[in-house]
Amino acid sequence: MSELKNDRYLKALLRQPVDRTPVWIMRQAGRYLPEYREVRKEAGDFMTLCSTPELACEVTLQPLRRFDLDAAILFSDILTIPDAMGLGLYFSEGEGPKFTRTIDSASDVNNLAIPDPADKLSYVTDAVSLIRKELNGSVPLIGFAGSPWTLATYMVEGGSSKTFSKVKALLFEDPASAHTLMSKLADSVALYLNAQIEAGAQAVMVFDSWGGALTTPHYKAFSLAYMQQIVDQLIREKDGQKIPVVLFTKGGGMWLPEIADTGCDGVGLDWSVDINIARQQIGDRAALQGNMDPAIMATNPEVIRQEVSRILADYGHGSGHVFNLGHGITPNIKPDNVAALVDAVHEFSAQYHI
Amino acid sequence: MSELKNDRYLKALLRQPVDRTPVWIMRQAGRYLPEYREVRKEAGDFMTLCSTPELACEVTLQPLRRFDLDAAILFSDILTIPDAMGLGLYFSEGEGPKFTRTIDSASDVNNLAIPDPADKLSYVTDAVSLIRKELNGSVPLIGFAGSPWTLATYMVEGGSSKTFSKVKALLFEDPASAHTLMSKLADSVALYLNAQIEAGAQAVMVFDSWGGALTTPHYKAFSLAYMQQIVDQLIREKDGQKIPVVLFTKGGGMWLPEIADTGCDGVGLDWSVDINIARQQIGDRAALQGNMDPAIMATNPEVIRQEVSRILADYGHGSGHVFNLGHGITPNIKPDNVAALVDAVHEFSAQYHI
Repeated sequence: MSELKNDRYLKALLRQPVDRTPVWIMRQAGRYLPEYREVRKEAGDFMTLCSTPELACEVTLQPLRRFDLDAAILFSDILTIPDAMGLGLYFSEGEGPKFTRTIDSASDVNNLAIPDPADKLSYVTDAVSLIRKELNGSVPLIGFAGSPWTLATYMVEGGSSKTFSKVKALLFEDPASAHTLMSKLADSVALYLNAQIEAGAQAVMVFDSWGGALTTPHYKAFSLAYMQQIVDQLIREKDGQKIPVVLFTKGGGMWLPEIADTGCDGVGLDWSVDINIARQQIGDRAALQGNMDPAIMATNPEVIRQEVSRILADYGHGSGHVFNLGHGITPNIKPDNVAALVDAVHEFSAQYHI
Repeated sequence: MSELKNDRYLKALLRQPVDRTPVWIMRQAGRYLPEYREVRKEAGDFMTLCSTPELACEVTLQPLRRFDLDAAILFSDILTIPDAMGLGLYFSEGEGPKFTRTIDSASDVNNLAIPDPADKLSYVTDAVSLIRKELNGSVPLIGFAGSPWTLATYMVEGGSSKTFSKVKALLFEDPASAHTLMSKLADSVALYLNAQIEAGAQAVMVFDSWGGALTTPHYKAFSLAYMQQIVDQLIREKDGQKIPVVLFTKGGGMWLPEIADTGCDGVGLDWSVDINIARQQIGDRAALQGNMDPAIMATNPEVIRQEVSRILADYGHGSGHVFNLGHGITPNIKPDNVAALVDAVHEFSAQYHI
């Protein structure tokens, strides 16, 4: 493997000194880029794009050709694991992800097998290897997966949900089956992320998109506990390099110290969180990632620069901050505004690392 | 006016001793009740139901005939104020509220007039008077309005939104106009709630449904500051009776002490909040309202009873708690489950008031 030329992202997550705050953007390989839309169109459907390593590699690299980003993130979907479990993932236009089979009973849970990544998910690890090779050491590659709770919401509801009534009914009415489901998913995610690490991922992130929909006791019992189970099983060092792990619960601003207590390296913050308070609460337990409101990306470069400056100042001096949005970038954003963001982070952050 | 026979709700908000924890349910007059659907059908459209005092009174009283609730809440909509400002509120099937005119520019903001409730909103105050008369002192009547920020989201976006990109662009790109808009809305809401109080409302609640979509600095500057402006203008005592005011920001769990610092009497909690921590944070500054997950209402009476018991225990001993859901009840709920909730609150809470 080529030597890593830009290790700002990894160092910031390990709270080691950096010259500037690193920046990457959730969904940086995505529909706001015309060149992405081109490849997406050629691929035909979204799953073909995800499951063809050459195409996944191409779209992963696209934003790095345009912007001075400090990390690449594997192009994939959080629902690859339930798909590998046999639930039949598909994407219906305008309605988001769907499954042909859902988890409806205790026996459905008991019948779920933990997928062997080498068997069912080799298209992902092949993409990781290829991207890592193509990056040629320019920036580190981030692998990722969905959290057990977040995966379970789709598996039980059969797709996206506003109220999560089916999956919450499972938690309340059959907690034993719910725990079995989350534990199988945690083991599956850990195996999957470790396979990504073995294939070349230099950091991993767990997306708990729907943790914020839970009560505090249920968040701890059904979401956080199983992210802990993942953290405990992950490869944390490879070839003498630490492999940082970042946990991100959207809507999890009330639970940040508990998230840090899992022993993860970084905690993702959505935009509602005050990053200064988050830093005070978490102290030296973990680095922080975030947290600009994605809606700001629809304004103009001057507003973007002001908000970058505000967030960097709120975080303050020293390492331990990876700049990002507080959620994924939306398809309506002009690429020039992304350039303004990335440049502003590098320009304004140097003063905090002297 | 008849003497109030059940003042448990008002006393709890004023943190005075009560025999049992009072309970009411957000959207208790709503689609989960067959008798509501009947009246709604007869009315033809939703706005006719809201704007006909006899019909609004009838549906307000319906849940009280079924359940042993400790308060009634005016049946109305949060968007009556922008409608009275001339924006033309209508409801399109399956798409929620819409406006025929939207706020698109500084001049649109400047042209907005603060509606005189006696002129444009007399259908609401007429409904309040009628409900109060029909209640005949059985339980207190709650009046309500939307928060300035929440109203502004609909007025600028033209309806519901997921990303709030237009209204957030206004905050970032023209903050002066945004402040003018919020201030006009705050004055409008204060006049409107005071008119409801003059007509007979015995407590008022401000619903900040979308405050949780803001960054912390913007929440404080554009939502909380204008709820403060409302609280400062409200009638807080009438005929020797205190008129409590409750502020509820959904997704506001990180900002509870700041909400209490407005001088409101009660703080609404969504279900993600740990009510025990909220009580520790707020102390004797305000009472708490909440906060059962509405999804639990779709399970069964045994689960509902367990969760009621858990929340009451988490709040602990003493007054200052109004039991409620953490958000509105959904149309799919069986009325028997509501009965189970109400009965469980009264049954299990007595022990905390000895």
